[in-house]
Amino acid sequence: MEDQCKLRLRLRLNGTQGIVMGPGRADLLALIAETGSIAAAGRRMDMSYKRAWSLVDSLNTSFTAPLVETAKGGAGHGGARLTALGEELLAAYRELETVTRTAGSVFLTRFETSLAVPPGAKPG
Amino acid sequence: MEDQCKLRLRLRLNGTQGIVMGPGRADLLALIAETGSIAAAGRRMDMSYKRAWSLVDSLNTSFTAPLVETAKGGAGHGGARLTALGEELLAAYRELETVTRTAGSVFLTRFETSLAVPPGAKPG
Repeated sequence: MEDQCKLRLRLRLNGTQGIVMGPGRADLLALIAETGSIAAAGRRMDMSYKRAWSLVDSLNTSFTAPLVETAKGGAGHGGARLTALGEELLAAYRELETVTRTAGSVFLTRFETSLAVPPGAKPG
Repeated sequence: MEDQCKLRLRLRLNGTQGIVMGPGRADLLALIAETGSIAAAGRRMDMSYKRAWSLVDSLNTSFTAPLVETAKGGAGHGGARLTALGEELLAAYRELETVTRTAGSVFLTRFETSLAVPPGAKPG
Protein backbone atom coordinates (compact mmCIF):
# COMPACT_ATOMS: atom_id res chain seq x y z
CA MET A 1 0.00 0.00 0.00
CA GLU A 2 1.38 3.38 -0.91
CA ASP A 3 2.25 5.69 1.94
CA GLN A 4 1.25 9.23 0.96
CA CYS A 5 4.03 10.66 3.13
CA LYS A 6 7.05 8.87 1.67
CA LEU A 7 8.30 12.07 0.16
CA ARG A 8 7.66 15.55 1.46
CA LEU A 9 6.99 18.24 -1.09
CA ARG A 10 8.28 21.68 -0.13
CA LEU A 11 7.14 24.69 -2.14
CA ARG A 12 8.90 28.01 -1.88
CA LEU A 13 8.08 31.30 -3.53
CA ASN A 14 11.00 33.67 -3.99
CA GLY A 15 10.87 37.32 -4.88
CA THR A 16 13.97 39.29 -5.85
CA GLN A 17 14.62 40.00 -2.17
CA GLY A 18 14.44 36.35 -1.22
CA ILE A 19 11.78 34.02 0.07
CA VAL A 20 8.27 35.45 0.44
CA MET A 21 6.38 32.26 1.29
CA GLY A 22 7.37 28.71 2.14
CA PRO A 23 6.57 25.79 4.43
CA GLY A 24 7.83 27.45 7.63
CA ARG A 25 6.11 30.76 7.03
CA ALA A 26 2.86 29.05 6.10
CA ASP A 27 2.95 26.88 9.22
CA LEU A 28 3.67 29.93 11.36
CA LEU A 29 0.71 31.80 9.86
CA ALA A 30 -1.56 28.81 10.44
CA LEU A 31 -0.45 28.54 14.07
CA ILE A 32 -0.91 32.28 14.66
CA ALA A 33 -4.47 31.89 13.36
CA GLU A 34 -4.95 28.91 15.66
CA THR A 35 -3.34 30.24 18.83
CA GLY A 36 -3.96 33.96 18.44
CA SER A 37 -0.37 34.60 19.50
CA ILE A 38 2.94 34.97 17.70
CA ALA A 39 4.83 33.73 20.77
CA ALA A 40 2.63 30.65 21.14
CA ALA A 41 2.83 29.92 17.42
CA GLY A 42 6.63 30.16 17.55
CA ARG A 43 6.81 27.84 20.59
CA ARG A 44 4.75 25.24 18.77
CA MET A 45 7.40 25.29 16.05
CA ASP A 46 10.33 25.22 18.53
CA MET A 47 11.23 28.65 17.26
CA SER A 48 12.60 31.50 19.35
CA TYR A 49 10.33 34.45 19.98
CA LYS A 50 12.81 36.64 18.12
CA ARG A 51 12.80 34.32 15.11
CA ALA A 52 9.00 34.17 14.99
CA TRP A 53 8.78 37.95 15.08
CA SER A 54 11.44 38.27 12.42
CA LEU A 55 9.43 36.01 10.10
CA VAL A 56 6.23 37.91 10.81
CA ASP A 57 8.02 41.17 10.09
CA SER A 58 9.28 39.75 6.80
CA LEU A 59 5.79 38.53 5.89
CA ASN A 60 4.29 41.90 6.79
CA THR A 61 6.67 43.86 4.59
CA SER A 62 6.82 41.51 1.61
CA PHE A 63 3.31 42.24 0.44
CA THR A 64 1.10 45.21 -0.28
CA ALA A 65 -0.40 44.94 3.21
CA PRO A 66 0.49 43.11 6.45
CA LEU A 67 -0.49 39.44 6.78
CA VAL A 68 -0.51 39.52 10.61
CA GLU A 69 -1.89 42.18 12.90
CA THR A 70 -1.20 42.47 16.62
CA ALA A 71 -3.22 44.04 19.42
CA LYS A 72 -2.34 47.71 19.46
CA GLY A 73 -0.27 49.14 22.26
CA GLY A 74 0.78 45.73 23.53
CA ALA A 75 4.21 44.23 23.75
CA GLY A 76 3.07 41.75 21.19
CA HIS A 77 2.98 38.80 23.54
CA GLY A 78 -0.77 38.51 23.31
CA GLY A 79 -3.26 39.09 20.61
CA ALA A 80 -2.24 38.43 17.05
CA ARG A 81 -4.34 37.35 14.11
CA LEU A 82 -4.23 37.08 10.38
CA THR A 83 -5.48 39.93 8.28
CA ALA A 84 -7.81 39.26 5.36
CA LEU A 85 -4.76 39.23 3.06
CA GLY A 86 -2.96 36.86 5.43
CA GLU A 87 -5.84 34.41 5.37
CA GLU A 88 -6.11 34.71 1.61
CA LEU A 89 -2.42 34.12 0.88
CA LEU A 90 -2.18 31.24 3.36
CA ALA A 91 -5.15 29.63 1.62
CA ALA A 92 -3.57 30.26 -1.80
CA TYR A 93 -0.34 28.60 -0.64
CA ARG A 94 -2.20 25.55 0.67
CA GLU A 95 -4.13 25.30 -2.60
CA LEU A 96 -0.86 25.52 -4.51
CA GLU A 97 0.49 22.60 -2.47
CA THR A 98 -2.67 20.61 -3.14
CA VAL A 99 -2.77 21.17 -6.90
CA THR A 100 0.93 20.34 -7.14
CA ARG A 101 0.36 17.00 -5.40
CA THR A 102 -2.69 16.31 -7.55
CA ALA A 103 -1.49 17.47 -10.95
CA GLY A 104 2.03 16.21 -10.28
CA SER A 105 1.16 12.89 -8.65
CA VAL A 106 2.59 10.80 -11.48
CA PHE A 107 5.94 12.61 -11.20
CA LEU A 108 6.01 12.47 -7.40
CA THR A 109 5.29 8.76 -7.57
CA ARG A 110 8.18 8.35 -10.00
CA PHE A 111 10.51 9.75 -7.34
CA GLU A 112 8.97 7.79 -4.50
CA THR A 113 9.35 4.47 -6.28
CA SER A 114 13.04 5.25 -6.95
CA LEU A 115 14.05 6.20 -3.42
CA ALA A 116 16.90 4.08 -2.07
CA VAL A 117 15.61 4.16 1.49
CA PRO A 118 11.88 4.67 1.54
CA PRO A 119 11.30 7.51 4.03
CA GLY A 120 9.18 6.31 6.88
CA ALA A 121 10.61 2.81 6.72
CA LYS A 122 11.30 1.55 10.19
CA PRO A 123 13.90 -1.07 11.07
CA GLY A 124 12.67 -4.48 12.12
CA MET B 1 1.90 43.20 -19.29
CA GLU B 2 2.54 40.38 -16.89
CA ASP B 3 6.12 39.30 -16.37
CA GLN B 4 6.20 35.51 -16.01
CA CYS B 5 9.27 35.77 -13.80
CA LYS B 6 7.96 38.06 -11.07
CA LEU B 7 8.01 35.26 -8.60
CA ARG B 8 10.28 32.25 -8.67
CA LEU B 9 8.79 28.92 -7.73
CA ARG B 10 11.18 26.54 -5.97
CA LEU B 11 10.19 22.92 -5.55
CA ARG B 12 12.00 20.64 -3.16
CA LEU B 13 11.49 16.97 -2.50
CA ASN B 14 12.58 15.77 0.93
CA GLY B 15 13.05 12.23 2.09
CA THR B 16 13.57 11.33 5.74
CA GLN B 17 17.31 11.87 5.29
CA GLY B 18 16.83 15.34 3.85
CA ILE B 19 16.56 16.80 0.39
CA VAL B 20 16.62 14.36 -2.53
CA MET B 21 15.81 16.77 -5.37
CA GLY B 22 15.55 20.52 -5.68
CA PRO B 23 16.38 23.46 -7.94
CA GLY B 24 20.15 23.28 -7.42
CA ARG B 25 20.44 19.52 -7.89
CA ALA B 26 18.22 19.66 -10.98
CA ASP B 27 20.32 22.46 -12.51
CA LEU B 28 23.51 20.54 -11.74
CA LEU B 29 22.16 17.42 -13.44
CA ALA B 30 21.10 19.45 -16.48
CA LEU B 31 24.56 21.02 -16.73
CA ILE B 32 26.31 17.67 -16.36
CA ALA B 33 24.20 16.42 -19.25
CA GLU B 34 25.11 19.53 -21.24
CA THR B 35 28.83 19.74 -20.47
CA GLY B 36 29.66 16.07 -19.92
CA SER B 37 31.66 17.06 -16.83
CA ILE B 38 30.89 17.44 -13.14
CA ALA B 39 33.65 20.04 -12.77
CA ALA B 40 32.40 22.11 -15.70
CA ALA B 41 28.81 21.85 -14.49
CA GLY B 42 29.87 23.04 -11.03
CA ARG B 43 31.83 25.96 -12.47
CA ARG B 44 28.78 27.08 -14.44
CA MET B 45 26.94 27.28 -11.14
CA ASP B 46 29.81 29.03 -9.30
CA MET B 47 30.09 25.95 -7.17
CA SER B 48 33.31 24.44 -5.85
CA TYR B 49 34.41 21.14 -7.33
CA LYS B 50 34.06 19.59 -3.88
CA ARG B 51 30.50 20.87 -3.53
CA ALA B 52 29.51 19.62 -6.98
CA TRP B 53 30.89 16.18 -6.20
CA SER B 54 29.18 16.14 -2.84
CA LEU B 55 25.83 16.83 -4.49
CA VAL B 56 26.43 14.17 -7.14
CA ASP B 57 27.34 11.70 -4.40
CA SER B 58 24.13 12.55 -2.56
CA LEU B 59 22.09 12.16 -5.76
CA ASN B 60 23.78 8.84 -6.51
CA THR B 61 23.01 7.36 -3.11
CA SER B 62 19.49 8.72 -2.63
CA PHE B 63 17.92 6.50 -5.24
CA THR B 64 17.82 2.86 -6.21
CA ALA B 65 20.57 3.48 -8.79
CA PRO B 66 23.05 6.30 -9.54
CA LEU B 67 21.82 9.34 -11.50
CA VAL B 68 25.31 10.26 -12.73
CA GLU B 69 28.03 7.98 -14.04
CA THR B 70 31.66 8.94 -14.57
CA ALA B 71 34.30 7.57 -16.90
CA LYS B 72 35.85 4.58 -15.20
CA GLY B 73 39.34 4.81 -13.83
CA GLY B 74 39.53 8.55 -14.20
CA ALA B 75 39.94 11.18 -11.53
CA GLY B 76 36.48 12.32 -12.39
CA HIS B 77 37.57 15.57 -14.02
CA GLY B 78 36.41 14.44 -17.40
CA GLY B 79 33.62 12.31 -18.63
CA ALA B 80 30.38 12.31 -16.71
CA ARG B 81 26.86 11.77 -17.94
CA LEU B 82 23.39 11.07 -16.68
CA THR B 83 22.22 7.50 -16.39
CA ALA B 84 18.80 6.51 -17.70
CA LEU B 85 17.40 7.01 -14.20
CA GLY B 86 19.12 10.40 -13.98
CA GLU B 87 17.53 11.56 -17.21
CA GLU B 88 14.17 10.21 -16.15
CA LEU B 89 14.13 11.86 -12.72
CA LEU B 90 15.41 15.16 -14.08
CA ALA B 91 12.58 15.10 -16.62
CA ALA B 92 10.07 14.19 -13.89
CA TYR B 93 11.26 17.13 -11.79
CA ARG B 94 10.92 19.57 -14.71
CA GLU B 95 7.44 18.24 -15.44
CA LEU B 96 6.52 18.69 -11.81
CA GLU B 97 7.63 22.32 -12.02
CA THR B 98 5.61 22.81 -15.19
CA VAL B 99 2.37 21.27 -13.90
CA THR B 100 2.69 23.27 -10.68
CA ARG B 101 2.96 26.52 -12.65
CA THR B 102 0.08 25.50 -14.90
CA ALA B 103 -2.33 23.98 -12.38
CA GLY B 104 -1.38 26.54 -9.75
CA SER B 105 -1.29 29.64 -11.93
CA VAL B 106 -4.28 31.29 -10.26
CA PHE B 107 -2.62 30.93 -6.85
CA LEU B 108 0.79 32.08 -8.07
CA THR B 109 -0.86 35.11 -9.65
CA ARG B 110 -2.57 35.86 -6.33
CA PHE B 111 0.87 36.13 -4.73
CA GLU B 112 2.41 38.09 -7.57
CA THR B 113 -0.31 40.74 -7.52
CA SER B 114 0.20 41.18 -3.76
CA LEU B 115 3.96 41.62 -3.73
CA ALA B 116 5.09 44.89 -2.16
CA VAL B 117 8.06 45.28 -4.48
CA PRO B 118 7.43 43.48 -7.75
CA PRO B 119 10.52 41.39 -8.38
CA GLY B 120 12.16 42.42 -11.60
CA ALA B 121 11.07 46.03 -11.25
CA LYS B 122 13.88 48.31 -12.31
CA PRO B 123 14.36 51.84 -11.06
CA GLY B 124 13.80 54.69 -13.49
